[in-house]
Amino acid sequence: MNDLRVAIVGATGLVGQEFIRILTQRNFPTKSITLLASDRSAGKKLLVKGQEIEVKETTPESFNDIDIALFSAGADISRHFSPIAAEKGVVVIDNSAAFRYEPDVPLVVPEVNIEDAKNNKGIIANPNCSTIQMVTALYPLHKVNPIKRIIVSTYQAVSGTGTAAMDVLTSQSQTVLAGQPVTPHVYPHQIAFNLIPEIDVFFDTGYTKEEWKMLVETRKIMHAPHIAVSATCVRVPVFVGHSEAVNIEFERPMAPDEARDILAKAPGVKVLDDPTVSLYPHPWMAAGTDDTFVGRIRSDSSLPGGLVMWIVADNIRKGAALNAVQIAEEMVKRGWLRG
Amino acid sequence: MNDLRVAIVGATGLVGQEFIRILTQRNFPTKSITLLASDRSAGKKLLVKGQEIEVKETTPESFNDIDIALFSAGADISRHFSPIAAEKGVVVIDNSAAFRYEPDVPLVVPEVNIEDAKNNKGIIANPNCSTIQMVTALYPLHKVNPIKRIIVSTYQAVSGTGTAAMDVLTSQSQTVLAGQPVTPHVYPHQIAFNLIPEIDVFFDTGYTKEEWKMLVETRKIMHAPHIAVSATCVRVPVFVGHSEAVNIEFERPMAPDEARDILAKAPGVKVLDDPTVSLYPHPWMAAGTDDTFVGRIRSDSSLPGGLVMWIVADNIRKGAALNAVQIAEEMVKRGWLRG
Repeated sequence: MNDLRVAIVGATGLVGQEFIRILTQRNFPTKSITLLASDRSAGKKLLVKGQEIEVKETTPESFNDIDIALFSAGADISRHFSPIAAEKGVVVIDNSAAFRYEPDVPLVVPEVNIEDAKNNKGIIANPNCSTIQMVTALYPLHKVNPIKRIIVSTYQAVSGTGTAAMDVLTSQSQTVLAGQPVTPHVYPHQIAFNLIPEIDVFFDTGYTKEEWKMLVETRKIMHAPHIAVSATCVRVPVFVGHSEAVNIEFERPMAPDEARDILAKAPGVKVLDDPTVSLYPHPWMAAGTDDTFVGRIRSDSSLPGGLVMWIVADNIRKGAALNAVQIAEEMVKRGWLRG
Repeated sequence: MNDLRVAIVGATGLVGQEFIRILTQRNFPTKSITLLASDRSAGKKLLVKGQEIEVKETTPESFNDIDIALFSAGADISRHFSPIAAEKGVVVIDNSAAFRYEPDVPLVVPEVNIEDAKNNKGIIANPNCSTIQMVTALYPLHKVNPIKRIIVSTYQAVSGTGTAAMDVLTSQSQTVLAGQPVTPHVYPHQIAFNLIPEIDVFFDTGYTKEEWKMLVETRKIMHAPHIAVSATCVRVPVFVGHSEAVNIEFERPMAPDEARDILAKAPGVKVLDDPTVSLYPHPWMAAGTDDTFVGRIRSDSSLPGGLVMWIVADNIRKGAALNAVQIAEEMVKRGWLRG
């Protein structure tokens, strides 16, 4: 296996820094790591595998002599630089929504559809955080018993918005605890000790783009164009870890024990489900880990044969950086990505 | 209208103190207010309509010369003292779950089924907080177009647990912000910057009692024994205000505009629904208010003719103390409750 020349675009951001940590922790075969960001961040130095590396401004020339570029710098940067990089033969794994819905761009969760990554035209899209953890948990069930309908309510951490939102949660929480009034910032309303049922922009349907993503991305990743999905996406005052309450309707009845057995063997999934000892996943325990955790598995009291479950994962790791690196790892393993 | 001799049982608790505030704010016709609690709280003095009143220990004799008793001191106290009070001719409105599921005990949300209160045998039950706000918002729709199935995920504030839980959210938040580890207290896991998908005890079905309540209480209050309900109830790090993401299936299709029109005229309901200006309810704005707020009304993308909405209310007011006082007010107005 040849070592790869890796570029990280958006290296100073929350997901960018997680890319660095994960490449190091997983011993990803790198020949070199190039850190790229906006001119604002250029010159900063970040520690990579014990070595200081200077962040460079992203330019078209940045992608000369690069094998793989991990992008997480927003959709505008991706839209501009990904095609330039791909043109130079770089394989781009893009964490933004810029290319996810293009029919010829693979949208990949390795545990579900790594085969799609093979037929890339230089750009592979990393799905939305909320979608990744949901399909990781649901696809193993869907393979056994096709899913017809999914109703999901999310409880999403502020880290999904970025560093500024984490700072806002900290400072607003301090302000509230000091008995002072909060001026909203980053979000349209106070997030400390509050909830905001608005993530990404609103569409005319009344759904937000985040909610719409959970429909279209699930269909694309699972190759299930007829699956019905309704999502309500809510920002909660949690730093790291997205949670989801999910009701699932299958073609045939599915018992909780059958689902538990399937999920116990599923890649990337860990079942934590013992109510007698208050064992179920929650974001505080999932933060910093790699698995998609599933608990509270039970028969749907409103639908014979249906299931309800509770899915939690680290939105910055499995929901973003880890999933992208796993795509690269699997491609290297299959010889689809070479130095 | 004769003035009433009112007793508040559990007067020093969170709901008890809200009883006092609400009786005062709404100018409830009282001849006297007696404050009762455990022997631990006896002797404390609370301000009622500008006057200090001493809290007395609850004994059978406490209910002599009382017309109406508002109970919020837990199920054990209710189970013990409510029948004693009722025996003495007192009308008990009980905020605990002690009698809610007895066939001959009315379970009442005034906007829905005040008529049920008439045939009481001395005890009227106040429903669970999560149920009250849901049926207040859904019953007006159900009357026009019967509801077949409800899927609800809740986001419940810690005040539902009581004063100790509010203190725990404060102290744990301070601990986390100071970078120190938290030792769980009151809840089985840390609640600060976290979520706990466990409210009340677990049943063998995998549902919690809180989730089960949303099924059986909704059926009883709405006189809809066949309605299907599945709930996932989650504690969130919010002080006051429960929120609910609800998917609703009707007998016939229901359009969002029709629902908005119906809810705009519904008693106790306020529609806040304009995505273009980020207008939707959230707990911080609902805390301290009396209405049940509804927003994010949209057609269910997973079910033609279905609806999705977001319901928020102050769980201590409409979810507890206010609803109980409203029951009393409506009974007084109808001559079912006299001094």
